[in-house]
Amino acid sequence: MTQPSTRPAGRHPHSDADLRARAARAVPGGMYGHLNAALFPPDFPQFFVRGEGARTVDADGREYIDLMSSWGPILLGHRHPRVEEAVAAQLARGDTLNGPGPVFVELAELLIELVPSADWAMFSKNGTDATSQALVVARAATGRAKVLMAHGAYHGANSWFTPATVGLTPADRADFVEFAYNDLASAERAAASAEGDVAAIIVTPFRHDAFEDQELADPAFARGLRALADRIGAALVIDDVRAGWRLDLGGSWEPLGVRPDLTAWSKALGNGHPIAAVTGTDALRDAAASLYSTGSFWFSAAPMAAAVATLETLRDTGGIAAMARAGELLRAGLAEQAAAHGLAVTQSGPPQIPFLTFADDTSFEKAYHWTTAALAAGVYVHPWHNWFLNTAHTEDEIRTALERTDDAFASTRRRFGAD
Amino acid sequence: MTQPSTRPAGRHPHSDADLRARAARAVPGGMYGHLNAALFPPDFPQFFVRGEGARTVDADGREYIDLMSSWGPILLGHRHPRVEEAVAAQLARGDTLNGPGPVFVELAELLIELVPSADWAMFSKNGTDATSQALVVARAATGRAKVLMAHGAYHGANSWFTPATVGLTPADRADFVEFAYNDLASAERAAASAEGDVAAIIVTPFRHDAFEDQELADPAFARGLRALADRIGAALVIDDVRAGWRLDLGGSWEPLGVRPDLTAWSKALGNGHPIAAVTGTDALRDAAASLYSTGSFWFSAAPMAAAVATLETLRDTGGIAAMARAGELLRAGLAEQAAAHGLAVTQSGPPQIPFLTFADDTSFEKAYHWTTAALAAGVYVHPWHNWFLNTAHTEDEIRTALERTDDAFASTRRRFGAD
Repeated sequence: MTQPSTRPAGRHPHSDADLRARAARAVPGGMYGHLNAALFPPDFPQFFVRGEGARTVDADGREYIDLMSSWGPILLGHRHPRVEEAVAAQLARGDTLNGPGPVFVELAELLIELVPSADWAMFSKNGTDATSQALVVARAATGRAKVLMAHGAYHGANSWFTPATVGLTPADRADFVEFAYNDLASAERAAASAEGDVAAIIVTPFRHDAFEDQELADPAFARGLRALADRIGAALVIDDVRAGWRLDLGGSWEPLGVRPDLTAWSKALGNGHPIAAVTGTDALRDAAASLYSTGSFWFSAAPMAAAVATLETLRDTGGIAAMARAGELLRAGLAEQAAAHGLAVTQSGPPQIPFLTFADDTSFEKAYHWTTAALAAGVYVHPWHNWFLNTAHTEDEIRTALERTDDAFASTRRRFGAD
Repeated sequence: MTQPSTRPAGRHPHSDADLRARAARAVPGGMYGHLNAALFPPDFPQFFVRGEGARTVDADGREYIDLMSSWGPILLGHRHPRVEEAVAAQLARGDTLNGPGPVFVELAELLIELVPSADWAMFSKNGTDATSQALVVARAATGRAKVLMAHGAYHGANSWFTPATVGLTPADRADFVEFAYNDLASAERAAASAEGDVAAIIVTPFRHDAFEDQELADPAFARGLRALADRIGAALVIDDVRAGWRLDLGGSWEPLGVRPDLTAWSKALGNGHPIAAVTGTDALRDAAASLYSTGSFWFSAAPMAAAVATLETLRDTGGIAAMARAGELLRAGLAEQAAAHGLAVTQSGPPQIPFLTFADDTSFEKAYHWTTAALAAGVYVHPWHNWFLNTAHTEDEIRTALERTDDAFASTRRRFGAD
């Protein structure tokens, strides 16, 4: 139904304000999901028009050093030449056809080569597709229904997982049993309560729940989950959608020596191009082959070409180590600035996936103030969700970002006083 | 885990046979989902390397007139210049950013302009995302759980809908109640059995179940479902994922004068670029705004630019009428050929979404033979799933296709005899 679009005279038709006014009519709530600016401090922009390397530009023409990397998908910087060339070359031949392209096989083989726990791969579009598909594979393999997951963990946005409970039915969550992250005894209790009906244990490689400091996995917890899964005959599923390809080329629990039966991947896999994957072991191959899980765009070649280019570039350039160094530089700089301004902060998570909170800031007032000041100075960071580094965050970019965040700490100190 | 890739010497590494052999190691079952060649006659290719207009080329270099249009996504022909230019221009600026681009608003406004039942739009990636999201909106609006759907209908591939039951739990389908397509009394009975707990009735605009002749909606059935939904306070959801943009710019039941509360769209929306949408009425706007449903790539700008270019091109060029004319030409030609060869066939569905079955062919032997012969002659059609026309199927292309299918009928007659 056409509604009149009454634009205030003299304003740029693509200003953030004007776009929001139009979106308020055309989209429920004006926006939805994780990029909804209504969930962020008021000055945060809703609309973006450009990305290049470590920088993004919003609809009002303001440029930022982007420390969110589009909430994870951007791994090599925006518009990485090698990735974009691979996509353009594939699009010039064809993308969504009556079957996959050769790149489907190349990408599956590359994942198997890089990921020690991967004997096979399947592809889809959303991280939620991958986590859901992994659980169905586990159910098909075991003939069981229940899934153990950590309380508060985010594994996707369908009715099994979304943190909003509106529109859900009791059946949607009937087969999920919760444990506490890093609390092996609670996982053992959850397994016992499910009485031999556990198909899978799904777990993120570290605790990265929104509104909380991040928490690395206790190696004993990771090993304990592996042993628990083996003991009860359930599949251990690592949800590496958020962390994947930033911590280890072989999967985020490789450094702990803990290998999953199934892994869900997405976000960074195609450097912003839409693709998700499940990888798994030979023991689960037949179960995976028995599913009918598909989508109109799951076999499109261009995002697969993006993924091959992304993973090869990451591997060939030592990108993970570079992100770790950039993250350590950022962390050290922020710590120094906070201390110099007399502000107590907590920085948590791996350096490649940073997060910063302020002491005594349960309502996130200081975080809102600090991120708003950083934004005004040209650094895009988030007050209550972890950030993501990418390989375009060179030492120079991080130093520039730090030059800009110092004033944000000063402003926060002026507004809230020292700790 | 790396496995040796032992390629037979002297074969092209990208032949269909070689790619299948490699895929058999790297992917469960070698392939999965609706494009899995194991589900088709043996000669059908698995891998494709090129698409252009109405033609596709498989990995062995064989060119086809593509009457499947990638199972729906290709609406204007493969690599339509206006669409590809819009995508390239958007990719040159940015795609997956920390917020949507202006094209997010433009696309939502365009859908509202084209679709009389649309007061708002939301976007996602998969048709399954859109159908699922529509049901959650209906549940959020009504506070009810149950969904009425037609027996045998395909509404997606997650655990609510997939036709394969492996890996499912009883909870997955607990809230779905079935009726028979075009049988209003059965829908009334289904509603009565759900005792005032019906959130939604989801229905395809015509019956397009695999392995069956297609069946257009009885207008009285469509109007009756609308009246039933109104009487019991449930949302009428049209799943226009498969048919959308081929029958009517405003939605597939516009010609019947029946308007849904919610519509799920995908497939053809971006001419092969990955995007899905839900549109709905103002009455459901607040419910839609209350969901937390999202995905890492749902706000990416390039597929939205593709969708705007696709819909504008379709509208500006009278594409739907052109597909209807091409479909009628194809149907008349096939009917004439079948009759000339003494073969009884049924052609069903709208001309833009054709399908052909043979008499007394419950095991699809004749269909396998005929489609295999058509394939060998350079026409890609499907034995047990509806086909899709696109606007690159000009009169010339259809006539060329018909020149090729005549021999397929002759061969079928030789093999099976006349009816």
